[in-house]
Amino acid sequence: MKLLGNGIVAQSGGPTPVINNSVCGVIQEWLKAKCTGTLYGALYGIKGVLQEDFVDLSSQSSEIIEGLRYTPGAALGSCRYKLKEEDYYKLLRIFKQHNIKYFFYIGGNDSMDTANRVHQLALSDNYPLKVIGIPKTIDNDLPFTDHCPGFGSAAKYLATTVIETGIDLKGLVNNSRVVILEVMGRNAGWLAAATALARREEAGAPHLICLPEVPLNKGKFLSEVERLYREIGYVYIVASEGLVDEKGDYLFAASCKDSFGHVQLGGLAGSLKAFIENETGIKARCNVPGTTQRSAMHLASFTDAEEAYMVGAEAVKLASGGRSGLMVTLTRADEDDYRCLTGNVELGKVANVEKKIPAEWISGSGHDVTSEFINYVSPLIRGEITVPIKNGLPNYVNLMLNGFADPERQAVGP
Amino acid sequence: MKLLGNGIVAQSGGPTPVINNSVCGVIQEWLKAKCTGTLYGALYGIKGVLQEDFVDLSSQSSEIIEGLRYTPGAALGSCRYKLKEEDYYKLLRIFKQHNIKYFFYIGGNDSMDTANRVHQLALSDNYPLKVIGIPKTIDNDLPFTDHCPGFGSAAKYLATTVIETGIDLKGLVNNSRVVILEVMGRNAGWLAAATALARREEAGAPHLICLPEVPLNKGKFLSEVERLYREIGYVYIVASEGLVDEKGDYLFAASCKDSFGHVQLGGLAGSLKAFIENETGIKARCNVPGTTQRSAMHLASFTDAEEAYMVGAEAVKLASGGRSGLMVTLTRADEDDYRCLTGNVELGKVANVEKKIPAEWISGSGHDVTSEFINYVSPLIRGEITVPIKNGLPNYVNLMLNGFADPERQAVGP
Repeated sequence: MKLLGNGIVAQSGGPTPVINNSVCGVIQEWLKAKCTGTLYGALYGIKGVLQEDFVDLSSQSSEIIEGLRYTPGAALGSCRYKLKEEDYYKLLRIFKQHNIKYFFYIGGNDSMDTANRVHQLALSDNYPLKVIGIPKTIDNDLPFTDHCPGFGSAAKYLATTVIETGIDLKGLVNNSRVVILEVMGRNAGWLAAATALARREEAGAPHLICLPEVPLNKGKFLSEVERLYREIGYVYIVASEGLVDEKGDYLFAASCKDSFGHVQLGGLAGSLKAFIENETGIKARCNVPGTTQRSAMHLASFTDAEEAYMVGAEAVKLASGGRSGLMVTLTRADEDDYRCLTGNVELGKVANVEKKIPAEWISGSGHDVTSEFINYVSPLIRGEITVPIKNGLPNYVNLMLNGFADPERQAVGP
Repeated sequence: MKLLGNGIVAQSGGPTPVINNSVCGVIQEWLKAKCTGTLYGALYGIKGVLQEDFVDLSSQSSEIIEGLRYTPGAALGSCRYKLKEEDYYKLLRIFKQHNIKYFFYIGGNDSMDTANRVHQLALSDNYPLKVIGIPKTIDNDLPFTDHCPGFGSAAKYLATTVIETGIDLKGLVNNSRVVILEVMGRNAGWLAAATALARREEAGAPHLICLPEVPLNKGKFLSEVERLYREIGYVYIVASEGLVDEKGDYLFAASCKDSFGHVQLGGLAGSLKAFIENETGIKARCNVPGTTQRSAMHLASFTDAEEAYMVGAEAVKLASGGRSGLMVTLTRADEDDYRCLTGNVELGKVANVEKKIPAEWISGSGHDVTSEFINYVSPLIRGEITVPIKNGLPNYVNLMLNGFADPERQAVGP
């Protein structure tokens, strides 16, 4: 099938190390289709669409387009913005005005909801818009896909961190004998769970994995910390930022909310440290990688990067085949060796649904995972990316300075 | 000269990614000297000497010895322990008992003080002990040496982190438009300053570098944050954990002290975040790499690793030449291209002296560094280490499981 009219691609929410691989997949597949239309990039996400802040992606140099494959962050710019009712009508007007017939939206749960509403509105308006969602989240919490692009790279970064800081902890007998690594994951503990990959010997780090799926029993938790401290001499704890207590309340949540009405979390590690120190007298220290875990391209998973590209390319294939209202999914071939294929699912089924770790993959104590989970996650972190190095540091392509956007445009937010 | 009798090497204080390169240098130089004596490693630092917890290093397999070159953490184990008066006499008795004539101590300021006292006691006792200190600290605060092994690798890790998380910050328009990276450095801001290497374009991250050398003027600081936010749209702040206010008090120090009587710092980033948010209304988020910055072997500097090896080897050469009471130093050849040589300095001159960033390397605002500083630090982060990878993760040699120590021995502390 042929692509008729123009297209637009936008990035949404928190970046991942490989989110630009998806943009690259969209552009290169669009160019392959030899469409006469223009492929636009919206700058700074859906806000860029509303503000008609576009850049022509189909005419970028091949160096810039290839550079997307090893540049972290959102190369087009991203935003967190919940659309108002009137915004949807405005979007449709803008799409019509620019003859945009294809809308590719790279994001997580909230973005798939947005994409679905745009799709529904276009349908009811009889405007021939093809809307395809492209999954992206280090949190790995989108349903109907085996896993999410971005997750494998963040998991690889965090597992490497646990290996290295675990060796550090093991080697130094001082007064901090508990390390708490706070990792991202609001309601699903996939990233925290993935650090179990770091454990290559019995009694190796991590020793306790605190998942949002398992409400923390404070007494049981402290007993576990004390037991491990007695038996091993030190305790490595990995905790999801979204840890809850047995009443289901975020354990150490700040009081502010983001624009989606989600509670913004912060300071879990510090609060857990104070809790452990006050109750047991064992000194603890915190490692909070923060945005490092979603931007560490130098430790990205090659598998993940390839799959992020794949879902971008597949989105264009679906759209050119006349499909709409779908999110691309990743499926795992039923073979001994890992092989990943693409599929798709209706946007409406994905929107606002969070996929948590299945209970059967969480092991008895609630603070560890089963070998089934390890089998699931292992292939996703395989393979390394060679980033270009200049004078000892990564030399990423600065797309913003190469015609993608001028600095003034950064003033669209917050 | 020939080595007569046995030797012992110990690691002290916080590990660095390359501290084991120094151990490797000591062992391989010792073996080259074809000494009939044994080279012992003390397990868990000076405590291991006091407890006669030794391991025979000279008889380890060459694979294990070479493995030291790419394994982070303290392979022999380290500790933070301030020796009591009677401990020194006990040390000397133990050295005599085991015919130990060479004591190599890898550490920072405190350790050089310890080494010096052992040297003085042996002198006054007429016991022919050669004591050589081997510099090690990511903080880079030892005097009389151009720089310290460990610093270049931590600097490379942190500068890479600023590049990657800076791109992340730039690309996402959301409600967190200030990022605070809290880095190690109690009284000297070398590591914070080194993140200036990440800035490869005007207005690039980091935008403000807060050094312990420059007491924070809160009003001026807030004005700077607000100005940068207006002009660029976001602000990347790097702050040393040991930041002080204009009275010289640690800005956000916890109240506990470590065994050396130093105030243990923590929570600076969180407090700085609250301060900025309350005073300006601009949302901030914290990245606190913690022990990651001193253990990230996958991002270690090749230059740093080579120099860490060099100082270890040089220590044995000095001792076999009959020298004692010295710390090995690194000196920079007076040439256009960077070349590093070794020198030495009396332990007594180094003990407990902290080298801060010279005032002339701190630029006008107090929140940046000069091009002279950049010229100083640039060569130290050059070159990459290829760590062995297994299933997508670093496969470090686990020395503790290869006969270096049995797990029971981990119970020597805290």
